[in-house]
Amino acid sequence: MEIITTVPDMQSMADRQRREGKSIGIVPTMGFLHEGHLSLIEVARSLCDVAVTTLFVNPTQFGPAEDFGRYPRDQKKDERLAESAGTDILFVPAVKEMYPDGYKTYVVTEEISAILEGKFRPTHFRGVTTIVAKLFHIVKPHQAVFGQKDSQQVAVIRRMVEDLNMDVQIIVAPILRESDGLAMSSRNVYLSPGDRKNATALYRALLFAKEAAGRGERDAKVLRREMMAILNEAHPTAIDYVTFVHKESFDEVLHLEGPEILAVLAVRFGKARLIDNMMIPVSPEDRS
Amino acid sequence: MEIITTVPDMQSMADRQRREGKSIGIVPTMGFLHEGHLSLIEVARSLCDVAVTTLFVNPTQFGPAEDFGRYPRDQKKDERLAESAGTDILFVPAVKEMYPDGYKTYVVTEEISAILEGKFRPTHFRGVTTIVAKLFHIVKPHQAVFGQKDSQQVAVIRRMVEDLNMDVQIIVAPILRESDGLAMSSRNVYLSPGDRKNATALYRALLFAKEAAGRGERDAKVLRREMMAILNEAHPTAIDYVTFVHKESFDEVLHLEGPEILAVLAVRFGKARLIDNMMIPVSPEDRS
Repeated sequence: MEIITTVPDMQSMADRQRREGKSIGIVPTMGFLHEGHLSLIEVARSLCDVAVTTLFVNPTQFGPAEDFGRYPRDQKKDERLAESAGTDILFVPAVKEMYPDGYKTYVVTEEISAILEGKFRPTHFRGVTTIVAKLFHIVKPHQAVFGQKDSQQVAVIRRMVEDLNMDVQIIVAPILRESDGLAMSSRNVYLSPGDRKNATALYRALLFAKEAAGRGERDAKVLRREMMAILNEAHPTAIDYVTFVHKESFDEVLHLEGPEILAVLAVRFGKARLIDNMMIPVSPEDRS
Repeated sequence: MEIITTVPDMQSMADRQRREGKSIGIVPTMGFLHEGHLSLIEVARSLCDVAVTTLFVNPTQFGPAEDFGRYPRDQKKDERLAESAGTDILFVPAVKEMYPDGYKTYVVTEEISAILEGKFRPTHFRGVTTIVAKLFHIVKPHQAVFGQKDSQQVAVIRRMVEDLNMDVQIIVAPILRESDGLAMSSRNVYLSPGDRKNATALYRALLFAKEAAGRGERDAKVLRREMMAILNEAHPTAIDYVTFVHKESFDEVLHLEGPEILAVLAVRFGKARLIDNMMIPVSPEDRS
């Protein structure tokens, strides 16, 4: 595995791979890698000739009161894990390399960036689309692998890629969960031992919705009421949202219909803000 | 010359050229080509293996009260001229091809997009950076040629390219002028015969500034006063601005110092809004 830290070196390497006819897959991460990330790297490796993992805690996607400063970092461990999962090139730029003095340009995908996560984190998706656009210009990938855990991020990035005609195929890999159902996340380290146990409520609430929809319940309000009850039993600090959306537009749906509905939620336990989601397969309504 | 109208066809063509080791030069235009545009195409042709000219009147860079609807168009003539100047590929997409329903993404370069032209045309540069980013992703150029006539546009695009790590070299070609000094522009057709004569005042005002600076005048206020007098004698409808800026930042300068100073101005005659600029070479101050 080669480690690259500057933009020109990474671009030259990407040019060289492309000239040799090799396909490039990128896995953008903020580091502190867990099995979820490793599964994304394995996907990139299986699809492309060259798997590039990027490690960059991107300041522009954190709000001023958020956890940029204390976001967990462990580059040495990340290097070992990224290599073990099959990374060919690890791109680890410094903040000044990505945002030098005088930096002024942002990519904004309107509307979908302003709802749900975007409502609680107003500049978050602007930071995400900006860094992903930059990384695509630096790594020059054919395919990019993202995790379904950040489902709204996936929808925002798909919209940006389509709108800006970026010639990059977006691949989405499924959520990996701990044995008790908690979605893997670098931010799970913020959970106290008690909250760690209670945090399984996110998964249980989502499973309830999926099962109730499977039994025929179509009313988002009814489902949401029960999900809130499951979450509230876990004594969260706050429930930011619990709702049902169309998978691509993230428009909220009140009546569950069609194949592309996601249950999405965001819940806080102390300093840990957790998000999770689940596809809710809704078969065509029984008209007998 | 090949004419391409869809994004996937243009991207496939660009991929093919790059696979064959050919360099691609792009000249983005809004059509109604004049000798100024043709000189840009000739530069692209001389620098790159494949010269791609794009013809697209980009709606997002026009304000709601501006001239998008009446902007002059003549595709047949443009095809002849583009070919005569050495265009290999003419990319002519429809508006719906570039901005399909549901389009939501914009590239914004802050600060420099909000001053001077950006003050009089608030969403103009957002439209410019967005369409240029899109065209770069579609045409995949190694080099892009722009005209110095739109000097602030050049500065905004340079900033965007650097900030977003776009691996495209920006080439700037000099202003072409009519025999009486008027800078060539597709919008010159808006001028009435009387205004057409008066419009040479822009060039005369700029020449005055250059000559006065050459004689040692360093006070922008003094120069500006005389330039305003020259312009006002031409009975313009409005003088939007006359000022001196740093070539890259477009920060205004009050005292002319250093090698990178531009005189810039924008003047309206009836429906024609004209812009022009000139480098003001300022030799180091005489300290004898």
